[in-house]
Amino acid sequence: MIIDCHGHYTTTPPRQQAFRDAQLARLADPSLPVPAPPAIGDDAIRESVENNQLKVLRERGGDLMLFSPRASGMEHHVPDPETARVWARASNDLVHRVVGLFPRHFAGVCQLPQTPGGALDDATAELRRCVEDLGFVGCNLNPDPSGGHWTSPPLTDAYWFPLYETMAELDVPAMIHVSASCNPAFHTLGAHYLNADTSVFMQLVQGDLFERFPTLRFVIPHGGGAVPYHWGRYRGLAVRMGRPDPSDHVMKNVFFDTCVYHQPGIDLLHQVIGPDNVLFASEMLGAVRGVDPETGIAWDDTKRYIDNAGLTDEERHKIFETNARRVYPRLHARLTSEGR
Amino acid sequence: MIIDCHGHYTTTPPRQQAFRDAQLARLADPSLPVPAPPAIGDDAIRESVENNQLKVLRERGGDLMLFSPRASGMEHHVPDPETARVWARASNDLVHRVVGLFPRHFAGVCQLPQTPGGALDDATAELRRCVEDLGFVGCNLNPDPSGGHWTSPPLTDAYWFPLYETMAELDVPAMIHVSASCNPAFHTLGAHYLNADTSVFMQLVQGDLFERFPTLRFVIPHGGGAVPYHWGRYRGLAVRMGRPDPSDHVMKNVFFDTCVYHQPGIDLLHQVIGPDNVLFASEMLGAVRGVDPETGIAWDDTKRYIDNAGLTDEERHKIFETNARRVYPRLHARLTSEGR
Repeated sequence: MIIDCHGHYTTTPPRQQAFRDAQLARLADPSLPVPAPPAIGDDAIRESVENNQLKVLRERGGDLMLFSPRASGMEHHVPDPETARVWARASNDLVHRVVGLFPRHFAGVCQLPQTPGGALDDATAELRRCVEDLGFVGCNLNPDPSGGHWTSPPLTDAYWFPLYETMAELDVPAMIHVSASCNPAFHTLGAHYLNADTSVFMQLVQGDLFERFPTLRFVIPHGGGAVPYHWGRYRGLAVRMGRPDPSDHVMKNVFFDTCVYHQPGIDLLHQVIGPDNVLFASEMLGAVRGVDPETGIAWDDTKRYIDNAGLTDEERHKIFETNARRVYPRLHARLTSEGR
Repeated sequence: MIIDCHGHYTTTPPRQQAFRDAQLARLADPSLPVPAPPAIGDDAIRESVENNQLKVLRERGGDLMLFSPRASGMEHHVPDPETARVWARASNDLVHRVVGLFPRHFAGVCQLPQTPGGALDDATAELRRCVEDLGFVGCNLNPDPSGGHWTSPPLTDAYWFPLYETMAELDVPAMIHVSASCNPAFHTLGAHYLNADTSVFMQLVQGDLFERFPTLRFVIPHGGGAVPYHWGRYRGLAVRMGRPDPSDHVMKNVFFDTCVYHQPGIDLLHQVIGPDNVLFASEMLGAVRGVDPETGIAWDDTKRYIDNAGLTDEERHKIFETNARRVYPRLHARLTSEGR
């Protein structure tokens, strides 16, 4: 089967965004009433997914997508903890509805109610709720809740440990994913996302996080940011810094997805990183939509690039399925219980 | 001939750093005397270069290096304009001494006295001094003088125009190069440098800078950060944003260097970007020093990777020489006047 490990609910019914707008309006004007999460009917949810992610997933031959709230909509830069809690819960509940309507095609990955510099109690509580009560299989972790000001400590800092303890206990991985950039120097999709991937990888090279949390697993999306293209740089820096080779030190716990939107990039990813650390993903209907006029292929149809990458059947099988089952054991357990 | 467009004076005699330390000490304690730039003899300068950059340049078959002050030592985050002015001048004067001692092997590229949010008058004045009085052929432009807090506007903002006007008048390019990171989220060499390359490229995709400054030229180092690996992403984002294709819109004025420290990365760079927009560079004795234990090749011996990249003689000639002469016309004029 083919598992796409990186999909966001970018096509939510309009009432969801209206609720978010009302949340933000009330933050600006506390005299407004507290908005309640919207009532959205099953038909509206069904339609929003059937004609979008599910349609494209089927057309491209995919079977199941790990589905999380829209990344740029997480907006962790908004500092109010209650707002973050309610917004994460509403976003995750909507993803849960999608999974309930299309259980063979989606599994949930949750948004965490992070705030810049805020304690992580709310994030761990929401992670626990989503995994234990809603059956989610992973979470998205934002290394820069400030939205482009990078005011949080590196992911190797003790600040993050309470979350890691819960992740380890629940045996769920995190995809490293920032939200919208509030910094005009960083375009959200063309700079901030990739910079976050690159920065976090280097934080892990510098630190010893996985010595402390040996079962912790991170998926770094967008093909690992700049890392595979600069793999020699990272190996050389590690030597210069007296650190172990990243292959031994980082890559037992870190995986890159295949959200790289052209053939040469995918080829390099496979050449450099190897089939055990790459997870199939497209982030379809996400950052880059539409069709490359030169090739006639949708930019985010990454399965096409992988099919053309000259891999063996065994390598493709790892990338399309078995790596995801290994990194997301709760997904594997669910699939196994369904006889898949 | 072979021109390495990216070298820093990372091996300055110790008195230079002692002077910098004294500068910073006086900023912390204004009762200290104002330090004067150090007296450094020709022998000390000769020795610092002959056994380092010049030796390696010769060993690897290079002919000439564009030489600028140490990038991480620029420290534009120090906000005092006078300190920045004096430090840039002292750093550039030392590079000028190297060029004077080894004129066949080095050409000067200057550090600008930038400060976070400061006016660019000092930077334009120092650029003019270095080009007109010292014969420098380009400058290093820091898009984030704050050192990892990214408080400056994008390079497409009018804030930067006075510098561009002087660059255009003098017909010199800028290499985009940040200095040391003061933000613990960003390792200087493993994240901040690459993020800056990536971020600036996207700023240029978003803007229309080269419509206003059609002769302005930027060299984005470190192989263009994450950009070539994600070239499909940038093309797709441009379409989605209603912008022209980056090949037409940005790449008439932007060039990537070859500071990518492994064969697959160099191969991708050439495959995706093509020979007209790539300039040979190694940043030797810079970020990544030493020898890859797996290949026995020095990480930064990028000529080896280029020689093995399957390029035609004509393509290699562009990358090693003619592109640099085109991007740095003052270098070309000097070489021509020397019969080279």
